[in-house]
Amino acid sequence: MQDRPKEKVLPPKADFSAWYHELIRRTLVDQRVPMTGFLVYKPLGYELFLNCMHILEDELAKTGHKKCYFPTLIPEHLLKREEHHIAGFSNEVFWVTHGGESKLEEKAALRPTSETIMYEMLKLWIRSWRDLPLKIHQSCSVFRYETKHTRPLIRDREILWNEAHTNHATAKEAAAQIDVGIKIYSELFRRLAIPVIWIDVVAGVFAGAEAAVEPYTIFPEGRVLEMGSVNNLGQRFSRVFDVKFKTEDGRDEYVYQTCYGVSERPLAAIVAVHGDDKGLVLPPEIAPTQAVIVPIPYEANKKKILNGARALKEKLKGFRIELDDREQITPGEKFYEWEMAGVPVRIEIGPKDLEKGGATLVRRDTGKKEFVKTDKIAARLEQMFVEIFKNMTDCAKRYHDSKIKAVKSIEDVKKAVTSDMLAQLAWCGELECAAKIEKAVDTPFIGKDHYQTTKGKCVGCGKPAKFLGYVGKMY
Amino acid sequence: MQDRPKEKVLPPKADFSAWYHELIRRTLVDQRVPMTGFLVYKPLGYELFLNCMHILEDELAKTGHKKCYFPTLIPEHLLKREEHHIAGFSNEVFWVTHGGESKLEEKAALRPTSETIMYEMLKLWIRSWRDLPLKIHQSCSVFRYETKHTRPLIRDREILWNEAHTNHATAKEAAAQIDVGIKIYSELFRRLAIPVIWIDVVAGVFAGAEAAVEPYTIFPEGRVLEMGSVNNLGQRFSRVFDVKFKTEDGRDEYVYQTCYGVSERPLAAIVAVHGDDKGLVLPPEIAPTQAVIVPIPYEANKKKILNGARALKEKLKGFRIELDDREQITPGEKFYEWEMAGVPVRIEIGPKDLEKGGATLVRRDTGKKEFVKTDKIAARLEQMFVEIFKNMTDCAKRYHDSKIKAVKSIEDVKKAVTSDMLAQLAWCGELECAAKIEKAVDTPFIGKDHYQTTKGKCVGCGKPAKFLGYVGKMY
Repeated sequence: MQDRPKEKVLPPKADFSAWYHELIRRTLVDQRVPMTGFLVYKPLGYELFLNCMHILEDELAKTGHKKCYFPTLIPEHLLKREEHHIAGFSNEVFWVTHGGESKLEEKAALRPTSETIMYEMLKLWIRSWRDLPLKIHQSCSVFRYETKHTRPLIRDREILWNEAHTNHATAKEAAAQIDVGIKIYSELFRRLAIPVIWIDVVAGVFAGAEAAVEPYTIFPEGRVLEMGSVNNLGQRFSRVFDVKFKTEDGRDEYVYQTCYGVSERPLAAIVAVHGDDKGLVLPPEIAPTQAVIVPIPYEANKKKILNGARALKEKLKGFRIELDDREQITPGEKFYEWEMAGVPVRIEIGPKDLEKGGATLVRRDTGKKEFVKTDKIAARLEQMFVEIFKNMTDCAKRYHDSKIKAVKSIEDVKKAVTSDMLAQLAWCGELECAAKIEKAVDTPFIGKDHYQTTKGKCVGCGKPAKFLGYVGKMY
Repeated sequence: MQDRPKEKVLPPKADFSAWYHELIRRTLVDQRVPMTGFLVYKPLGYELFLNCMHILEDELAKTGHKKCYFPTLIPEHLLKREEHHIAGFSNEVFWVTHGGESKLEEKAALRPTSETIMYEMLKLWIRSWRDLPLKIHQSCSVFRYETKHTRPLIRDREILWNEAHTNHATAKEAAAQIDVGIKIYSELFRRLAIPVIWIDVVAGVFAGAEAAVEPYTIFPEGRVLEMGSVNNLGQRFSRVFDVKFKTEDGRDEYVYQTCYGVSERPLAAIVAVHGDDKGLVLPPEIAPTQAVIVPIPYEANKKKILNGARALKEKLKGFRIELDDREQITPGEKFYEWEMAGVPVRIEIGPKDLEKGGATLVRRDTGKKEFVKTDKIAARLEQMFVEIFKNMTDCAKRYHDSKIKAVKSIEDVKKAVTSDMLAQLAWCGELECAAKIEKAVDTPFIGKDHYQTTKGKCVGCGKPAKFLGYVGKMY
């Protein structure tokens, strides 16, 4: 189902937007559905997404989150119950109004997120302090009628995501859970080799949350991508949805809640951060195909080489291996396709390799070739995957650091953002200062670093600063 | 999140409908969402469902089906393009008409199934005979605005399912694929220990299909449940959606298509066929918890017993094991809960077990107890799972056979269906005869056995019969 290479040459990565769209269309998704903002996930794209989600779901399971499934439809009265929530989502909700020819008694929203329907049920599930903490999560689609320009894997109208929701007896426990959420997502991003900055957002907190921390990564064109959101809801929703519990000493108390979600956006980051002029470069852990065996036969030894390739595939069955034995295309065309698909290692078996009793391993990330004896290939592959992951992590980190510019004046903020960098600056913590900087450079003040602080002087007002703020273009 | 046993006593299985609803509410799903026909899958229910789906998805992968994801929304013009299809679904489609405050330019259906949107894309993906066969599948929700009485896990308005779609160069290959589809589903049902009869349906073929084969299982109250559907679409959809390919000799030809789907209904069958007065009984392969360790401590040896239980859990980590060390409830209450949840084996560790250096294994299916030395437990558990699966398969088969009544007259058909049996009869193959029998007994003539034939005389007309027909109440 992969399109043939002859169709169109992939633009260079320097032409980022054209490169991104053409590359994902060739490999991950098909946008040609007759509905703006909706995507078809092709096999490679969907498997890559699921492999990311499996990492996340495993981490959620390890930390006591139980997997559930709640309905896609939410009746209007539930969605409208929490005022900040509906204010935040009312412009971007898809409404189901009819079943067959009949008008529904009450219209229903396609979930833009699931708080309202989940918490309506939690009210029934939670009775006493013994039921707490209660942590659930689900992987599902959510729907947003985006009025902004949609972009595949960045801003879609049907979003594939995982949302986790936790319930606690005290505010302190909920605050501690925020750290757990951050840790879970950090582990995901670490294994995708995607560097992120965790930012306490200043404006645009999740509709209904008291506070939000979000991981951002920087794209080549200098915009940052919000890769998820970890929210402290306090008792806002529990008061509205009446989610109460009996405390150990017999009082009635509202639960403290947190929620966090991550969508298909990590796929966009994998493409943008690791990809190169030849196409995708995938971390071995999540690559749907970890290595591809390409036989390079000549008529005289065709059978022998094919048999050698098949035997090798059998030996490597602990990995996700493909044997590309198609006859209608040349080895060169195969290289082109598999490189574009980001397969971490290509294993070539030609006459010389066969003679020497081995195969040539070619790394996707560096292009380096290495002859390895057949009985050593499995062990070498294992090791090579570690080396590839390490190299991808290092490269991504260097690239990421190169896109952050520490600045000391509003003028330098302006310079940084116009040269496609993320500006990092000292900030006093006052919202007026943030607004002033934002206005002066006509670029969003995203928030402050969740971990790092500073002792410099606020770029806005010149007073002593506590925080490290970020200003940059956003998707 | 499991409700406490004290709430309500589970009705006996003989009171099937009450038993079924109370049991699934306590264990698998929560129907108390404020929308008729929609369910919340609780952790046990959802994990059980996913475990079934994993078996299916593995079989689909092994037979060359690639996993994709297509949008939930289908624009009206696509859904309406194939006339039989829209005729079959028009009364039961949920329509999305608004995004935020704006009316959509074209309304969109929540997919009732995905043929129309998939085939619109296949038109772009398939070009030549080299692209065939092309087999894809997806696991997703589909939506049907059911006007019939809804029943949880049997007739829901949001259905969790897997749908597979295949494309072939010839009618012969498509016909062969039907057998592959049947084989895949048969393997699933075999591993769930659910006996089914494969029936070529006479009426109510999938909207747009040329022919359908469906697996049916029999419920205690004598109704049969359709557990899926394997459909030969011929060129009906490919002609309408213009899915063409260049043949090897250069002609343009429409592809031949098949599709098959299976939903959450296997969960209902697992409950109904295997369950007993104490609750669920789950096959070990799919049980979210395969064995539960229940320590039975007395004050004097509490610590020792708990340590023994913990050490045992560690030893058994190759299985899905829970250690129930809750202090607030008694071992008896724990037994009650885990039995209701259908956990295949309970492992009790009491003072005597500890003294003898082992634990007592109790089978959920038979209630039999067996003392096993600690270092033999892992091996014994493995073996016991095989024995449990064998026993569940045998019991289900005996039960299933006992619900089928071979009959020779219309009067006997009537007797069979009024005593909650499925009537099996000789049938000449004429639709008028089927209609005549159906009318006479006021019960559906479902179809004919896909595998077995007969040499008897048709119950409808007395002429020599070729087929084995089935008449029975349906859900």
